[in-house]
Amino acid sequence: MKLFLATAIAALCLGSAWAEPTATGDLGLVIERATGSVLLIDQSERAALARIEGLGDLSHASLVYSPDERFAYVFGRDGGLTKVDIVTRTISKRVMQSGNAIGGAISDDGQLVAVSNYEPGGVRVFDADTLEMVADLPTGSKTIGLVDAPGRRFVFTLWDAGETWIADFSGPSPKVTKIKDIGTNPYDALITSNGRTYIAGLFGQDGLTALDLWDETPVPQHILPNYGRGKQEMPVYKMPHLEGWALADGEFVLPAVGHHEVLWVDAADLNETGRTQTHGQPVFAMARPDGRHVWVNFAHPLNDTIQVIDTQSKEIIHELKPGPAVLHMEFTPRGHQVWVSVRDLDKVIVYDTRTFEKIGEIDAASPSGIFFTARAHKTGL
Amino acid sequence: MKLFLATAIAALCLGSAWAEPTATGDLGLVIERATGSVLLIDQSERAALARIEGLGDLSHASLVYSPDERFAYVFGRDGGLTKVDIVTRTISKRVMQSGNAIGGAISDDGQLVAVSNYEPGGVRVFDADTLEMVADLPTGSKTIGLVDAPGRRFVFTLWDAGETWIADFSGPSPKVTKIKDIGTNPYDALITSNGRTYIAGLFGQDGLTALDLWDETPVPQHILPNYGRGKQEMPVYKMPHLEGWALADGEFVLPAVGHHEVLWVDAADLNETGRTQTHGQPVFAMARPDGRHVWVNFAHPLNDTIQVIDTQSKEIIHELKPGPAVLHMEFTPRGHQVWVSVRDLDKVIVYDTRTFEKIGEIDAASPSGIFFTARAHKTGL
Repeated sequence: MKLFLATAIAALCLGSAWAEPTATGDLGLVIERATGSVLLIDQSERAALARIEGLGDLSHASLVYSPDERFAYVFGRDGGLTKVDIVTRTISKRVMQSGNAIGGAISDDGQLVAVSNYEPGGVRVFDADTLEMVADLPTGSKTIGLVDAPGRRFVFTLWDAGETWIADFSGPSPKVTKIKDIGTNPYDALITSNGRTYIAGLFGQDGLTALDLWDETPVPQHILPNYGRGKQEMPVYKMPHLEGWALADGEFVLPAVGHHEVLWVDAADLNETGRTQTHGQPVFAMARPDGRHVWVNFAHPLNDTIQVIDTQSKEIIHELKPGPAVLHMEFTPRGHQVWVSVRDLDKVIVYDTRTFEKIGEIDAASPSGIFFTARAHKTGL
Repeated sequence: MKLFLATAIAALCLGSAWAEPTATGDLGLVIERATGSVLLIDQSERAALARIEGLGDLSHASLVYSPDERFAYVFGRDGGLTKVDIVTRTISKRVMQSGNAIGGAISDDGQLVAVSNYEPGGVRVFDADTLEMVADLPTGSKTIGLVDAPGRRFVFTLWDAGETWIADFSGPSPKVTKIKDIGTNPYDALITSNGRTYIAGLFGQDGLTALDLWDETPVPQHILPNYGRGKQEMPVYKMPHLEGWALADGEFVLPAVGHHEVLWVDAADLNETGRTQTHGQPVFAMARPDGRHVWVNFAHPLNDTIQVIDTQSKEIIHELKPGPAVLHMEFTPRGHQVWVSVRDLDKVIVYDTRTFEKIGEIDAASPSGIFFTARAHKTGL
């Protein structure tokens, strides 16, 4: 024990970075999109702890965490992949891995980080420790909807070709299964939290496409034929985020495309069970972790509002006006609070999810995505 | 930043405890029942990091974690409540809060720790920071099945009186709702992972009792009338652990009482849907986090074996013999490994959950419960 302590003190005295004993279970990062920085936040203290800068273009950025909740892998729009150490509060490594990227994922064992690219189209896979590239999977297409699946697998979809690929890294070399007929111009996808069902949203046609990844040879199932812009061809201000889909009490909730409503879908047979009219075009429909309520935010120009829907009555039970440009909502893992980024107010606002009272706020520069470290322990986030 | 660093170094130079920068997301503790100690383990390294001693009688112990995954609250059989700091690897605080205790829980906001006591019968609630008692709820009965529920609530059940109490700590003083007619001698209970359904197992009669905590006034629902020892009155070597219940693909799995089988139960209507014959009397039936497989261990004298059941076919697809007295199994949060305590081998053995290969082992003194820090982010664990 004494030897360890000596090493620790030596490390501290030599290093210039933060190094107090730290537990990382209640920390998180906020993407500051305009300044290429991330803000380290502390859930329990309702405070910002540090700002880490130099991450490039974060205009449509997301991130995933290592299993120990120490490192965040931040996926920038400009193809930058940045490994942030939230314990020392520094950039640990950074590579420019493509010209234009759209999200990433981390394998279930935490050893591989994958990034989905528009240009050049495909997926590149990196060693989570060193950020050295271990596999390049060109697709000849803009590539979207990249998620991790159990068993060291990644699943992603080709915008141009309408194919979904399953890349299995459990063996000595990656094995890729290609599934055709996903539909016209899939633009985003999600995987259910158990890692079983992969669902792609389609820009070029109504409906969605589901794959059962437990099948030996998954077959595309076209579901919800009435999901989409429909015959009226409503103007769509923003395609909804499919990762915002919520599962509550045996039903999915989906933000509609173009229309001012959310759809309810039976989780077992994937049929539509109802619709709830909303304030605007929904962007995220997020279930509180207990599934009792769903919180919904909206596209421009109605994006100053959040509505809360009860999953039993399917009625709106509360409305909040946090401020201009509500971009994201993140629940604490056990659901007692929700943290909301209000971009044009330069604030992250914290609400009690039962009383709906505002219980804190944090200054942040043009905040967008909020990511708590608890995501490290979940599939498909 | 410099000020923080100086403080950190000063703290280190003064302190005698471990204080290297630490991330806590992939750590865990193993109860060493015979020696009153806990072993700090590292999931990613598949190694033991430290042993923390002096926790009293841990013969039927369990623990919960603070939201930041720094502190473990260990509930000893002798009424000891010990707060262990896994960052500094020391006992932070310890109180003897009763003469005989059986488990505890932590509120969703992490501020309250509750302990369930046999003697004196009731629940005591402590400030998670100081371990000072903030509420004493005597029940006049041995008290079991204590769980946390969303909204700063605790739910627990009275062995003698057959009542379930819901204690709501969201207001200035605790509000207790008492529900009668739970059944004869409830011996354990669970809450579903969304915090909605509380189910009590009954020692004194067949069947179980469910409560829907989303109801304003929950009404006991007697379910599974054929669950129990039945007419043959089989000898029961060990009542199954109800927290071992698993949810997989829309069904619960239950270890039978006395019989060599597990039961499948429809999660929506709580009716029995099938049974699978097993090697022995099951103790824990744990779903792998993706719900595809269920791992089952068994009561003495058949407790050297684990069986793995496929949730699609409901058939046993694999059997392992880890060694004498397999007491507990804990999956990594995303399910790629399972850690198994083999008491009489003085080992914790790590298996790959897909290949079933043994991929590591760790020395531990009479290990029983294994608890990864990811539990901090879950309801009812």
